[in-house]
Amino acid sequence: MEISFIGAGNLAWHLAPALENAGHHINEVYSRQLQHARQLVSNLYDAHTHSELNFADSPSKLFILAIPDDALEPVCSQLVLPEDAILVHTAGARTLASLEQWMAVYSDVPVLTGVFYPLQTFSKGQSFMVFDEIPLCIESGDSVTEEILVQLGQDISDIVYIITSEERRTLHVAAVFACNFTNHLLTLAHDLTVQDGLDFDLLRPIIGETFRKGLAAPDPADVQTGPARRGDLTTIDTHLTYLSNQPKLFEIYQLLTQSIQHQYRQ
Amino acid sequence: MEISFIGAGNLAWHLAPALENAGHHINEVYSRQLQHARQLVSNLYDAHTHSELNFADSPSKLFILAIPDDALEPVCSQLVLPEDAILVHTAGARTLASLEQWMAVYSDVPVLTGVFYPLQTFSKGQSFMVFDEIPLCIESGDSVTEEILVQLGQDISDIVYIITSEERRTLHVAAVFACNFTNHLLTLAHDLTVQDGLDFDLLRPIIGETFRKGLAAPDPADVQTGPARRGDLTTIDTHLTYLSNQPKLFEIYQLLTQSIQHQYRQ
Repeated sequence: MEISFIGAGNLAWHLAPALENAGHHINEVYSRQLQHARQLVSNLYDAHTHSELNFADSPSKLFILAIPDDALEPVCSQLVLPEDAILVHTAGARTLASLEQWMAVYSDVPVLTGVFYPLQTFSKGQSFMVFDEIPLCIESGDSVTEEILVQLGQDISDIVYIITSEERRTLHVAAVFACNFTNHLLTLAHDLTVQDGLDFDLLRPIIGETFRKGLAAPDPADVQTGPARRGDLTTIDTHLTYLSNQPKLFEIYQLLTQSIQHQYRQ
Repeated sequence: MEISFIGAGNLAWHLAPALENAGHHINEVYSRQLQHARQLVSNLYDAHTHSELNFADSPSKLFILAIPDDALEPVCSQLVLPEDAILVHTAGARTLASLEQWMAVYSDVPVLTGVFYPLQTFSKGQSFMVFDEIPLCIESGDSVTEEILVQLGQDISDIVYIITSEERRTLHVAAVFACNFTNHLLTLAHDLTVQDGLDFDLLRPIIGETFRKGLAAPDPADVQTGPARRGDLTTIDTHLTYLSNQPKLFEIYQLLTQSIQHQYRQ
């Protein structure tokens, strides 16, 4: 498949080489920051940077939007695509219908639309991620396009699901809880240790073991531990007293403790 | 060192074999539930179960309390130890002073006291945990006892710290944030996916990667991602609307989002 990337950020950094390794051909990489496009192109076989959003003469069939959610509509409003190109976004929190509407309004030629959402967190600059076990969530209103996207997904991953926009939103919310919020709790734990002159390294083994157990269990609820789980009110009181001069931490401790107590009906 | 365990739960299950493997000798295991003591003893060289809290004739020098926090005072009130024995508790959320006071009140003979707190989460029934990289937090009011406990710790772990009761409380609070609360967030994410008929397995790769990154960074704040981190208010609104009929999840989402926004001063 002939493919162009619109965006050269964290996702494109990993996805473009993965598609190439599966035998697809990346023609063009557009980025508002040309330097980013150049960096990505330097890792690809014979892709070129593309400095504008007019792709009317592009040989590509598939255009992958790999840009921040808030940039989707502004970019779509300027995008010029070849007739019957497939345009997909890669966002967890944007519907397929949004993309359909934007292209209906902004494009002078018919465009096929879809979603190609890898449920993973990407950062540039590491070695390239292996996509085999990254779930790919596919959606399209057009059955032929859907089949093309599923096939493309299966070329790089063993885990390809057809997922509606509503389901994708649920997955995205769940990922915010399970990933963004958990990382923030690690940050709060880090700051608590540092402010008392302690080394955060002391906590790394227990954090590692906690996540090993939580991911190994069918339901993380099965391996919940701690004072809230065992109804240890003395310890909870001691902890809240300690946190009483840090109102934000106090509130988070209290709310999550209540939520655990509620979950286990104590 | 001649050692007896008071308690045969998750911690004793792993700590007793680790001490034996380091060349120490476990004499006795007491548990209120004799069956638990029997199970642990069956994994030890020549330890015996002990059915009461009178250890007056015990050959042991060190007695390790490995029981729930709330059981510490009731057990100490009945405990009879040989003169000049060392008694340690293994609790994150109890001070050394509590143990000192209980033994001053309840013991007829002088007893040396200390804390031997492994900063890890333990579950029975897996293979035995390797203690090399488990941080051991030692405390004693008596310098000779402290030295004995540090030496014992170094026999099984490369990470032995002398930590005050106040510092241990901070570590324990931080561990509640970084472990108990994070596991609960995984549970909430699990329940969100299941209630919408989705497979929690879809989230396991991104959770694994999140924690790999969070633990690899010097400060987990360095790798924070998500809508709150990047100030994506549209996505936050979409998510809160979705959660509006689930008030507990709504409240947790809102509070942790605010905390992230505050951390990064948006």
